[in-house]
Amino acid sequence: MTLDAVLAKIDDNLDPALDRLTKLLRIKSISTDPAFSDDCQSAADWLVQVLQALGVSAEARSTDGHPMVVGHVGQGHPHLLFYGHYDVQPVDPLDLWHHDPFDPVVEETPKGKVIRGRGSADDKGQLMTFVEACRAWKAVTGDWPCKITFLFEGEEESGSPSLVPFLTKHTDELSEPDLALICDTGLFDRDTPAITTMLRGLLGEEVTVTGPTLDLHSGIFGGAATNPIRVLSKIIASLHDETGRITVPGFYDGVAEMPEDILAQWAALGFDDTGFLRDVGLSVPAGEAGRSVLEMIWSRPTCEANGIVGGYTGDGFKTVLPSKASAKISFRLVGTQDPLKIRQDFRKMVQDALPADCSVEFGDHGAGPASVMSTDDPAFEKARLALSDEWPKPAAFIGSGGSIPIAGYFQDILGLESMLIGFGCDDDQIHSPNEKYDVRSFHKGIRSWARVINALTK
Amino acid sequence: MTLDAVLAKIDDNLDPALDRLTKLLRIKSISTDPAFSDDCQSAADWLVQVLQALGVSAEARSTDGHPMVVGHVGQGHPHLLFYGHYDVQPVDPLDLWHHDPFDPVVEETPKGKVIRGRGSADDKGQLMTFVEACRAWKAVTGDWPCKITFLFEGEEESGSPSLVPFLTKHTDELSEPDLALICDTGLFDRDTPAITTMLRGLLGEEVTVTGPTLDLHSGIFGGAATNPIRVLSKIIASLHDETGRITVPGFYDGVAEMPEDILAQWAALGFDDTGFLRDVGLSVPAGEAGRSVLEMIWSRPTCEANGIVGGYTGDGFKTVLPSKASAKISFRLVGTQDPLKIRQDFRKMVQDALPADCSVEFGDHGAGPASVMSTDDPAFEKARLALSDEWPKPAAFIGSGGSIPIAGYFQDILGLESMLIGFGCDDDQIHSPNEKYDVRSFHKGIRSWARVINALTK
Repeated sequence: MTLDAVLAKIDDNLDPALDRLTKLLRIKSISTDPAFSDDCQSAADWLVQVLQALGVSAEARSTDGHPMVVGHVGQGHPHLLFYGHYDVQPVDPLDLWHHDPFDPVVEETPKGKVIRGRGSADDKGQLMTFVEACRAWKAVTGDWPCKITFLFEGEEESGSPSLVPFLTKHTDELSEPDLALICDTGLFDRDTPAITTMLRGLLGEEVTVTGPTLDLHSGIFGGAATNPIRVLSKIIASLHDETGRITVPGFYDGVAEMPEDILAQWAALGFDDTGFLRDVGLSVPAGEAGRSVLEMIWSRPTCEANGIVGGYTGDGFKTVLPSKASAKISFRLVGTQDPLKIRQDFRKMVQDALPADCSVEFGDHGAGPASVMSTDDPAFEKARLALSDEWPKPAAFIGSGGSIPIAGYFQDILGLESMLIGFGCDDDQIHSPNEKYDVRSFHKGIRSWARVINALTK
Repeated sequence: MTLDAVLAKIDDNLDPALDRLTKLLRIKSISTDPAFSDDCQSAADWLVQVLQALGVSAEARSTDGHPMVVGHVGQGHPHLLFYGHYDVQPVDPLDLWHHDPFDPVVEETPKGKVIRGRGSADDKGQLMTFVEACRAWKAVTGDWPCKITFLFEGEEESGSPSLVPFLTKHTDELSEPDLALICDTGLFDRDTPAITTMLRGLLGEEVTVTGPTLDLHSGIFGGAATNPIRVLSKIIASLHDETGRITVPGFYDGVAEMPEDILAQWAALGFDDTGFLRDVGLSVPAGEAGRSVLEMIWSRPTCEANGIVGGYTGDGFKTVLPSKASAKISFRLVGTQDPLKIRQDFRKMVQDALPADCSVEFGDHGAGPASVMSTDDPAFEKARLALSDEWPKPAAFIGSGGSIPIAGYFQDILGLESMLIGFGCDDDQIHSPNEKYDVRSFHKGIRSWARVINALTK
């Protein structure tokens, strides 16, 4: 049986696969820092060579930023597009790393072997799980399981400025696949694989309230002059009602209750609400009353103040009555909530709450809707069963509180559904010092892709 | 008649008086900057010489900071203590000055002559009005009108750290006077002199709310984790009710309604509520409903957020769910409000408003009660009439929204009532570039003191 042989090949070749990952991890492809532009190009070139050596027709295509690696190979149904990113986060603060972030080492830890270095989990290690699965398949069968398009981005950690233009320019070529596979997410827990089928959208707003035209002395004006901190605080306080619901008019349009079977699946995951909060020093879920933490994070929209500043904030005290106060406020969106309508309704609500002699300016920090994958597509259940074969516990369709815009771009620009499968663990310390990827994640990740590809081609 | 001769003498000697003030203004006695310590000593020495030349037994007494100038002279009732300060504010931003702040010049302006330079209004020019009044009196009569103690401080602009220890150490000597005269305030308006009889107290608090033990990613935790910005905003929003009243329990204990006659006096001042607010870009008085701006500022307590900060406040956007948010909150106090009890009640109110898994830390930024002078003392009415003789309009007993701690220290440590009389104008730009003092303020200020001293000795 082909799959068994491929899995055996993967097991045999784990060490060389780790060596190849190590080579990729040595390349300092920090996308946000222009000083590492050449390294980004090197990482793209290295991937092109790896793909070409496997017989893929691959090239690094230049963009206004870092190159996009595109490769095509194979024949047959379905046509899969695989997406990963080869760029990494900056490494500062460097002194918190226990060794050079770009000199990766395999370490023994109480939880097993890990490969430690910048990008090991996010996303080079994950990207290579798919490449290595393909390598094993090719080695065993001498052919490809189906038609595959590779798309490796080099700007994911710096806001993907070239992605939408690139997808738009190459729509004909890139909309041909039937399904996108994105490997940039995690396991549900160490033993439970997951397909992320719901991603929250994100609306970012900046609100600056101006009262007096200049900073005033509170001894002279205090009591008579409007204080913009007070005005802004009242607005922020009014954004939630006593039950934790968000009060922006029409906000819940497009927010559906989750079906009972999904809620039951989530309940079966045995998520530790208490432990999740306790790890960060909290004890009481802060969202809407009567909902579980997983519901709050995966399926309910939020409104958060991410930053606030006004008046004197240095050491000591200054009795200033400030001219301005401002806050950064974000909304995580679900279902079919319309970010632009919510922006409009939110701004009107703020305007309506202003005292007559205050004014407000708004800043736009992006607006993206939620992505909800159509799990009705039989490919999702096939992949779920394939993952369940590899891991100790059955795979689950889960949500994600975060926002991964790529799935939305694939949907909007290419008309392409995405399946998000990844093998990261909560303790991978992505974006932080001492990032690692479990060798188990890498190994079982490669095996998982072999199983998923096998299932999808059936 | 002695007074007329003294007033004539003052008129004759205005130019040499201005020359002397100019000399004092040239000394760079910036108290907050250690680089100008020698200049502070020079200003104290210069004043000692001026007083000694008038026959005053004066000396510059050293403190842990800048020297305190103390002088005694004369005989007879009442024994008056005159207070002023010889230190000045820093001059930055220097490039906004139209000429050297320590090279004072007399300029013609559309509103008349002014002497421009750092300290001209705050407080060297005001301090010298009293000295020059004494000089004229001495020149005309060959004697002093009554027993007078001079107290010139050199640290008023840097928080008066040596003042309380000095008053405490010299209580026997300095509590002997019957009344303190403090010259560090302003006219009500250009034509209306004022005796400030009510100064608001000040309670300064810092509130830091901690939710999660570390900054969280709002994609992962948003909806489930408590947001300290939201908690703090709710607290600030809850400090006032819909009518603008402060909601701290028991807050209004000790706040009396102003007597009808005082309110009538204030109404007669014809204060331009609309213009006062319009000058700073506002239109709606923000304090308690149904009260005039003067009432709000002079006779009503306030609660203001002077600063707030939490989360990400830089350019762009970061979907952080912060661990902490903090605010600086001050209360201006009136009547017999007890700052320490209000601190306690405020902190309890904040504690009670916290979600179960948030904590709060408080910072103490000082607590001083309001000063209310006993205008029943006939000296106040005598002084008011004397001032009314000098200026186009009758003098008024007014309040001040600010807090001048010196009057409270005199009351508490020396058991000494203070009368605050000054001749500054609203447009003097004290603490700012291009500070000036009207020559009219200086001239009529000297004449005013001659009249007040004359009245008080009657």
